[in-house]
Formats: sequence, structure tokens, C-alpha cells
Amino acid sequence: MTEHLLSQAPPSAAESTTRARPVVPARSSRRGSGIAEVHLDPAGFWGRRQATNAAATFQHCLDWMERLGWLANFDRVAEGSTGHERPGWQFSDSEVYKLMEGLAWEIGRTGDPRAATMLEQLTERIAAAQDSDGYLNTCFGHPGQADRYSDLEMGHELYCTGHLLQAAVARLRTHGPDRLVDVARRAADEVCDTFGAGGREGICGHPEIELGLVELGRALDEPRYVEQARLFVERRGRGLLGRIPLLGPSYFQDDVPVREADAWRGHAVRALYLSAAAVDVAVDLDDQDLLEAIRRQWGRSVERRTYITGGMGSRHQDEGFGEDWELPADRAYCETCAGIASAMVSWRLYLATGDPRYVDLMERTFVNVLATSPDEAGTAFFYANPLHQRVAGVDVLPGVENPRAEGGTRAPWFDVSCCPTNVARTLASWNTYAVAVDGDTVDLLQYAAGQVRVELGGGGTLALRVVTGYPVDGEVHVEVLEAPERPVTLRLRVPQWATGATLDSDSDSKSDSDPGPRPVGPGWAVVAAVFRPGDGIDLTLPVLPRLTWPDPRIDAVRSCVAVERGPVVLCLESVDLPQGVAVEDVRVRTAGGVRDDAPGARIDAVVVPGAAPAAASGFTGTYRSEPPPEIATESLELPLVPYHQWAQRAPSTMRVFLPTSEERA
Amino acid sequence: MTEHLLSQAPPSAAESTTRARPVVPARSSRRGSGIAEVHLDPAGFWGRRQATNAAATFQHCLDWMERLGWLANFDRVAEGSTGHERPGWQFSDSEVYKLMEGLAWEIGRTGDPRAATMLEQLTERIAAAQDSDGYLNTCFGHPGQADRYSDLEMGHELYCTGHLLQAAVARLRTHGPDRLVDVARRAADEVCDTFGAGGREGICGHPEIELGLVELGRALDEPRYVEQARLFVERRGRGLLGRIPLLGPSYFQDDVPVREADAWRGHAVRALYLSAAAVDVAVDLDDQDLLEAIRRQWGRSVERRTYITGGMGSRHQDEGFGEDWELPADRAYCETCAGIASAMVSWRLYLATGDPRYVDLMERTFVNVLATSPDEAGTAFFYANPLHQRVAGVDVLPGVENPRAEGGTRAPWFDVSCCPTNVARTLASWNTYAVAVDGDTVDLLQYAAGQVRVELGGGGTLALRVVTGYPVDGEVHVEVLEAPERPVTLRLRVPQWATGATLDSDSDSKSDSDPGPRPVGPGWAVVAAVFRPGDGIDLTLPVLPRLTWPDPRIDAVRSCVAVERGPVVLCLESVDLPQGVAVEDVRVRTAGGVRDDAPGARIDAVVVPGAAPAAASGFTGTYRSEPPPEIATESLELPLVPYHQWAQRAPSTMRVFLPTSEERA
Repeated sequence: MTEHLLSQAPPSAAESTTRARPVVPARSSRRGSGIAEVHLDPAGFWGRRQATNAAATFQHCLDWMERLGWLANFDRVAEGSTGHERPGWQFSDSEVYKLMEGLAWEIGRTGDPRAATMLEQLTERIAAAQDSDGYLNTCFGHPGQADRYSDLEMGHELYCTGHLLQAAVARLRTHGPDRLVDVARRAADEVCDTFGAGGREGICGHPEIELGLVELGRALDEPRYVEQARLFVERRGRGLLGRIPLLGPSYFQDDVPVREADAWRGHAVRALYLSAAAVDVAVDLDDQDLLEAIRRQWGRSVERRTYITGGMGSRHQDEGFGEDWELPADRAYCETCAGIASAMVSWRLYLATGDPRYVDLMERTFVNVLATSPDEAGTAFFYANPLHQRVAGVDVLPGVENPRAEGGTRAPWFDVSCCPTNVARTLASWNTYAVAVDGDTVDLLQYAAGQVRVELGGGGTLALRVVTGYPVDGEVHVEVLEAPERPVTLRLRVPQWATGATLDSDSDSKSDSDPGPRPVGPGWAVVAAVFRPGDGIDLTLPVLPRLTWPDPRIDAVRSCVAVERGPVVLCLESVDLPQGVAVEDVRVRTAGGVRDDAPGARIDAVVVPGAAPAAASGFTGTYRSEPPPEIATESLELPLVPYHQWAQRAPSTMRVFLPTSEERA
Repeated sequence: MTEHLLSQAPPSAAESTTRARPVVPARSSRRGSGIAEVHLDPAGFWGRRQATNAAATFQHCLDWMERLGWLANFDRVAEGSTGHERPGWQFSDSEVYKLMEGLAWEIGRTGDPRAATMLEQLTERIAAAQDSDGYLNTCFGHPGQADRYSDLEMGHELYCTGHLLQAAVARLRTHGPDRLVDVARRAADEVCDTFGAGGREGICGHPEIELGLVELGRALDEPRYVEQARLFVERRGRGLLGRIPLLGPSYFQDDVPVREADAWRGHAVRALYLSAAAVDVAVDLDDQDLLEAIRRQWGRSVERRTYITGGMGSRHQDEGFGEDWELPADRAYCETCAGIASAMVSWRLYLATGDPRYVDLMERTFVNVLATSPDEAGTAFFYANPLHQRVAGVDVLPGVENPRAEGGTRAPWFDVSCCPTNVARTLASWNTYAVAVDGDTVDLLQYAAGQVRVELGGGGTLALRVVTGYPVDGEVHVEVLEAPERPVTLRLRVPQWATGATLDSDSDSKSDSDPGPRPVGPGWAVVAAVFRPGDGIDLTLPVLPRLTWPDPRIDAVRSCVAVERGPVVLCLESVDLPQGVAVEDVRVRTAGGVRDDAPGARIDAVVVPGAAPAAASGFTGTYRSEPPPEIATESLELPLVPYHQWAQRAPSTMRVFLPTSEERA
């Protein structure tokens, strides 16, 4: 690749590629762990997913995009053979870039030569399609195509460019300047030339360019890019986008200026990418008002517009947020990409504030949305993540693109296939969200078996081994492998649900006569000490299953209860029911509590069969003049399984929130 | 108009224009009342709406379509000045035809000269746009436009033609052959030439042509048209339509053949227009299997996929039916047009079977969907009819097209404006659904103040005066004005909800020593007698408010109850709540019953305030480890108002299904 090295920029900073990570705020002493500072045990919950992603998902995505002609779109631009017909949606370029971003992280993490070859070849193909002035898009601006930027509302050109920049950032940080970085720089320059101050006062219908610009600006130390991101963020909510049929301006957050909004609304991924970028801009430019606006929107939306899984997006129609408390279980959209986007916002807010509640939501979303999407093989995915499946899915035919949100089975590829590549790039970089460093304070944020080896702000290295079966079990053993000879503060996140958590630390024992495990409340369990190799810390999180009641204003799950086990939301699947009993006939008896059955649980229930369908019965049976009888015909103990595992055994009906029996105490 | 009379056809039948009506099955002794056989008192519930429709709605629709250029589209075709740009959706022609159909019924009912002038002028304009071979469409097939029938999936050409034929049927039956009828005949011939046996094996993405063809075939005694309708019905469900993005073939019922389906699915108006046409075809061709299929689909769908209002369509995304029991109150789509289409299906099934349950559903839908749409002035409309409004609507700006389904206020016109003209044609012909005649049996189906004067099958006339304040009060007094001197059977429909109804008839008194009122059960209250002028019949329907419980499988309204009063569904509106109390904070106490407060009711309730919103509270407050406390701070008696009146006083939040208090007995 060196023969294509056109970049005049020096490597972005003194940061080593070991510390490469997606988000590097300009003004923040707190930083996330680098891509090679945390190594996950491939047998663990997250390590297994990361390994499957590396072994199968990248190639899977590449094969599909080759087969569907999304890659050949770049070749056609390079050859000058574009025309009216073009395979793929207008945003298909972005899938290629998300794959490239994922590959860059993978190379940074493992040096995988197969990934390196893949990325090199993709770089060649996309670079060849770049116009002489830096514009790069396979859907607009070439013979037989609409003019550049002629459909800012739905054209997704800047959206695609944003993903290109994010891919280049990953490459730059994990490897250094190369042709991809140069391509991105020229693309970013073209965007600034066109849309900068004094240029066209436009924004893209789908936010994303802002994220790419900020981070490329940070990585290349180019304030012009950050300023352009700021301009895009500030222009939003002022009606610059034209009217599109059937959807109002809130669809793309063009209804209210970013700093004036109180809650997320409209298309969820759009709202969340925009918010993530707004945090970046706010932090780098020290704009407390803008930062506070996104914190306020997070608070209101997480309280009233978020599912227990962390999923966001209550509506299929616009893939969007609903009104406050509008959280239907069956029609929950909860797009996988929205979960990823939510984690991106929360991560930036955590870096900006240090508040562990943001990390709590990330964990909830990682475990119950991100981990739910791919199947065990890493080659089929959920796009939507409903909390109630009324009709069992049908087996997906291999080799066919699926409608994006239908069915209760994971599909290899979708008509709109944003989720698989988004899963791929997120799993490849998952370890960068696991740990954070602020001076000589190290936060353990996500618990996964593996090793941590971080450079401290005050110099030196803290190396830890984490031994845990989390989230299936709640014992997290941390062993110090290396530490400087000065006090270091280790903070272990204690999730909000973890009432009764305890911490047992050798450093505690050293200062007292062994006090044994001490209770730690939600937030941080802090150990400040001069650590020595061999020192051990044991955090015990009570992952026993527990009942969780929804706010009564969530009408869709009134009189229902959910069961959680640690960060894992559980569900009832029809494959676990006796023959003849339907999911909709089950009422749980909460008085008996819930018993552990790792990784799931068991709960008492009764069966209340629905009325037999009467032909042409009309309203008689449906809406009645007396409360419908709830006559239990059977008592049984029901197994509940992790939601992220549902529909793995067979097509099934499923529900997370379970109606309670009238008999409950 | 006579100078344009090109038709060679004789008047369709010996039927007088008095008996003109929309649906005239070829094989049926039962018939609906003619447009001039029932006259509604303009002060009554339906008479008032019909008068407002005549006085205001027609002109309103005409003005909007003129202003938006939908009418000028016809002029441009006539002038040969079409181009790439064309105002309106591809189906805007159909709105003109629905208006014309409504005008034809209005002329038949009242002879209104203003309506006659309007229809005459519209006929001139649309006729001038017809191509020499009979094709008539302003969106396809002319310079600058796509080719004819080049987008059967979404082009709506045959859909538009179907509405043209229905307009011509109304004109033919209420007036006789004229230029509109001739235009329709030529258009129908072109459809048969193109899509007949041996022609192109296509269907339209939106059913409607089938309805127009059958009825025009009946009206002109042209079996070729009925046969073409049969072909279209039978071709459906065989994958003839191409794939459209994001929606599967069930969207336009192309997934399963009509006679094999068990329930309605996909786009509700499409499913229902298709089913109505299938009944027409089944009846005329004596196809019992097809008739039974639609009865089965009606039964299953009314039992499991229909709202208490009669509304159909659980999903915004595809304006479609949901799965069984998927009936969200807040996101209920319940398109006004789907309500009208449902009544069209039920009417045909009633004519075919005589089963009064079909008429029950029609009444429920008329009162709670059709009557809900227009405002008092007849110039603003609801498009969607949700059962729960979470955020009060904002005042609609006059003169602006509104998104079709948003907001809690009626809008003067919509981006997709199918509902206003559909309301107009249905109200103009509403009296044709009020009464039916089968030999010497007369069924009183819908109760409205006015006069009935029907020709009996055995000859002679039965004339009745109906005096009633129904549905506000339940007393229906029927006075015989004229009757033949032989026994006639009068059947009065007793709705399913009307437990405790009584009938008191002078003819009963004559045969016995006055027995007084006798109880009548749901179905028919029958009086068979030789009636004399002055004879009276009193039907008393218990319209006192009553509680109605939903099937527990309707998850969205678990632990909630609705209140109905006669056929009228009631609702709670925020404008009736004390300051500071939100609709979502109310729990009703069903033990105390419900008190009459005509036209609404009053019910005991308590106030359980929602938790105060906590900034950035995250999940703590939303999903809790203990059942959320339901601490009532206030008891009050709540007024409930007819759902069809909601949002008339001011923008409001609203709900039909009310959560019950935990304290309920």
C-alpha cells in the first residue's frame, strides 16, 4: 500500500496504534481502552462473538456485497460505465465503508492477514472511484445518474462519506496514513469546500457525516473538519431539508435545533448518530449548553422511550421513536443499528462526564440488542428486535435478501442491509469500550474474560487478568499482572440492578485485618492502592434472576412483568412450552418468585387457554359485557431463556413481558 | 348533457331511479333501499351529516382538487400538454371520480341543481381527457409520462378506472345513460381488451377495478365486465405483482389466492375492496366456495383484527391489518377509508346471507369510524382514527395539506386525500344501507329519523315514518303510513349489545288483548301483519352505558375497560379532566358501574399520578424491582363522551380503553 501513500499528514499523534480507538475527544483526560490494550478470551461471552465476527462475518458481508453488485458499483464509476440502472439502495456504499472500518479494527486488534488483504483490495476499488476533486459516491454525479447533492433529503451522499471517514479514522489510528486515509481526506475537503461557511447551506437527511468529520479532524489534527461538523449540527432543525412524502421534518430531526430539543424523535439511527456527533462537537469546542442538551435528551428518552432491552425505536413506519411511553412489545422496531448508535451516544457522554449510568445502558444494549442480532455462526442477523413475537418465523431461504424487519428468524442479508456491517465494525472494536483510563484511574466498564494492559496517564502500565463467566455468572476475579509502584485507583462498575454486590480486595486486606467482602452499591466499587503483581480483587455481582415491573404509563405491557438476570433480559419461547400451550395463554405467578436456571430462570405459571375461535363470531367473543374469565387449567414451572438467544433452536413465538396471574399476591 | 349522449345502451333495467343503489346483485331477492326510498330527517344523527355533506363537503373537495391541480391534470391530457411534472399522487384521478359518484347519489336523492352542475362540468373535463381507445388516466400514457400499465404494482391506473366505473354506475342508476356512462363503458372495454382472457395476465396493485366492473356489468347487463372482475379476483394471490421495496406481497393480497385465505392481511383498504368484489363475483356466478372464503375471512378478522370501534388496520407502516390480537390503541391506524370499505364488504355479505351480524358491524363502523371523520362543518376530516391520543393535536393551519395520519385534529385536506371524497360518497348514499326488502319482508337495518317508502317484492308500497333520537336515545317509533292489504313482515334489527330490548306493536295488540311490550333478543324483532296506516311499532333499545372488556389476548389493552352506550363507543378526553390531571393518570373503578349522561356517561375513577420526570433518571424509574405503587390521590366522577365527537372542543389527549383500578371488585 505504501506506493499509494499520498498523504502529507504526519501520523495523527504520538498515540501508538495499540491505543487506537474510535473516539478520541480533544478535551478530555478520560480515554477508552485501545484496540490492543484489551484482549478478550475467545471462549468468553464477548470474545466468542468477536472471534466469530472475525472468522465469518467479514467474509459473509464481503461475499454478499460482491454478489449483489454493491462493490462493482465502484468499478463502474472508475471505468466510466455508470448508467441509469445501479444495483443497491442509494446508501449501499456505506456498507462497504462499515465493513472496511471493521476490518481496520480487526487488523489493529489481531493483525489478521486475511483482513489486511481484504481491506487493501477494497481500498483499491473505492479509491479508483474517487473523482478528481475528491467526491466519492457511486449513486450520484456520474453519467446516467442524478447530479451531486441533488437529493440531500434521501440521497445519503454525505451519510456515505461519513462512514468513509470513520473507516479511514480506524485505519489511520491502527496503521497510519495510507491510501484510504488520503481518499478520506480528499473527500472531507470536498465536503468542506461545498458545504463550508460561505458555501451551500445544506445538511444530509441522514446524519453521519458529522461523526466522520469530527473524528477525522481529531485524527488528522484538522480543525476545519471539526468546524464543518459543528456547522452541520447547528444547521439542523431549521427546516433546511425539503418535505418528503408522508414523513414530517422530525423524521430527520430537522424540526427543532439540536440544542433546543428535549427528547429524541423521528428515525432512531438518525437521531442517535446526530446526538453522538453533537457530543463530540460540544466536547471539542467546550460547548456546555450543547452537551447539556444531549444529556437532557438522553435522560428523557431513556426514561420514556426506551425498551427494557435498551432497544430504541417504537415504530416500524419511520424506524423511529414514539411518543413518551409508546413502547409496544410486538411492534417494537428496536433496530440493531439504533442499539449500536445508542451505545455510541452513551459512550461519548460517559467519556465527557464519567457517569457510569451511561455505561449501564451500554451494557444493557450490548447484551440484549447487539448480542441478539447475529446467530451463533455470525452469518445471519436480526434487523428489528421485537419483545413479543406473535407468529413463529419461517425458515429463511439461504441466498435471498430479506425484508429488513419481518419474521422471527435471523436472515443472512437484507434489502436494506445496514445492520450486518454495523454489527461487524462494533464487535471488532468492542474491547475499546470495556475499560477507560483517566490519569492513574482505571475504570473497568464491561466485564469479560481476558487481559487488560493499559498505559496510565501518569506513565507506566497497569496489566490485569480478568477471570469471569459473566454475564452467566456474577463472579469477576481481577488479578494484577503489572502495576507501577505508586497508588493507582481501580474503579469497577457496579450496575444499577446489582443490589447486594460485594467487593473483596487484597489491598483491603492489606490495610486492615482481612475484613472480607464489603458491600458495594451501584456506581463504582473503588480500590485505591499500590498494586502488586498477584493482587486479587473479587467483585461479586448478584446475577440471580429478578422480576422487573414496567412503569404503568407503558400501556402496552400493563399488568405484565419481565424477568432479568444480571444485565440479561430473559424471555419465554414457545419451544419451551408443553404441546398445546401457546405463549399467549400463559400467566405468571409472581408470588412464588423466580428460580435460577443459568443462563435463564424458572417461574411459576398457570395456563389460561384463549377462547376457541368461533367462525364468524364477530364481536361477541372479542369484546364482552363481563370481564373475561381467567380459568387456569394447568400449573407449571416455565423456563425462561436469555432474550439474546431466542429463535436459535427453532422458529418460535416469544415474549419478554409476561402477563401476571390475577391470583398474584 | 343530451348532446353528448353517445351511449347505445338502453337504460339498464326496468328499475326506477328511485330504487337506485350502489349494490345490485344479479342473483338475490334481497335488495337494499333505493336512494329515494328513504328520506332522513335533516335534524337527526345521520340526516344532519348527510345535509352537511351536501351543503359543504362536495364543494370543499372540489375546491381543493381545483386548487391543487388535480382537475387540471385532465385538462392537460385533453390539451396534449402533459409533461414530466404533474401535481398529485398517481391516484389523484380517483378522488375526482369519488366526488362524482357522491354527486350522482346526491342528485338522485335530492335533485340538487348545484350538484348537477358540478357533475356536468366534471364530466366534461374528464371526458375530454379520454384517449380514443377508451383509456383514461392523467398520470400514464401521455407525452412525458410513463407508459400505460408500466407500473401495475403502484401505478393505480386500474384502481382509478374502477372508481370511474362506480361513478358511472351511480349516474346510470340515478339518471340514465349519459356522457359519463359512455366514458366508463369505453374505459371498461379498454380494460377488458387489455387484460381479458388471452390478453395481459395482470392485476392492479390496489383492488377497486373489480368492484367497478361487476357493478357496471350489472347496471349495463354486460357479462363481459363481470367476467373480467372474476378474472382479476382469481388472478390474485399468485405472485403476478412484482416485488416492491420493504413490503411483502401480502401488502396487496398477492400472497395467497382469495379463496384460500383465512384472514385479512396487508393494506386494509386493498384487502376490503378486494373482498367486497369477491362477494359480488361469488353471488353473481353462484360460487359458494368463494362466498364462504370471504365469510370465513370476515369472521376471523372481525374476531381478532378489529377494533371495538369497528376500525380496521393496526399498523401505520403499511396501513394494514396486524397479526391476530395485535390491536394497539395508540398506533391504531383505523383509516376512515378502511371503515367505509369494511361496511362495503359487510353490506354485500348481508345481502347474500341475511345475517344481521354483518349489519351490526356496519352500524358500529358507521357510528364510530365514518361519523368520527368529518367535523361538524363537513370541511375537515380524520384520516386515521386511533383509540388513544397521547399528545394533543395542534391546530391545523387552513389551506395546508396535512400528513395523512398525524395529529389529533381533523384536517381540511391530506397529502394522500382519499378519505374526504370517500366520506362524501358514503354519506350521500347512506340511506341506501338503512333498509332492505326481500319479497314482502322489509328489514329496518339502521335507525334514523325519517321516512321510508319502499316498493315490495310482491307489489305495492310500504311507507313508514321513523321517529327516533337514536343513537342518543333508544326509543324507535315506527308509524305505518301506507301498506298493501296483505300480510307484510317487518323485521327490526336488534343489535347484539341490546340485551333487554323490547318491542311493542299495535299489530300484536290486535291479535291478543294488549300484551304490552315483549322482550326481543339480538337478531330480528319480527312483526308480521296486515298493516294499516296509523299502526305503530315501538322498539326500545337499552342504550344505557355499559362496560365492555376486551379479550385478554389483546395485549395492548390488558386490564382496561371500555364504555359503550348503544352502538356508540365512548372515550375520555383531557378537556374533561381537572387541571393537573392527565389522561394517563386515570384509573377507573368498575365496581361502581357507569351512569348515564346522554350522549355520554359518567364513571368513578381515581387519580394515580405518574412519577415526576427525573432528569437523566435512566432506567431507575421506568423499569423497577418492585411493582410500581398505585397510590390514588383523588377520587372523581369522570365524564365520558362519544368517540365520534372527540377533538371537537379543543385539541385534546384521549383514550377509549381505560385502565382499571387495582381496587376493582
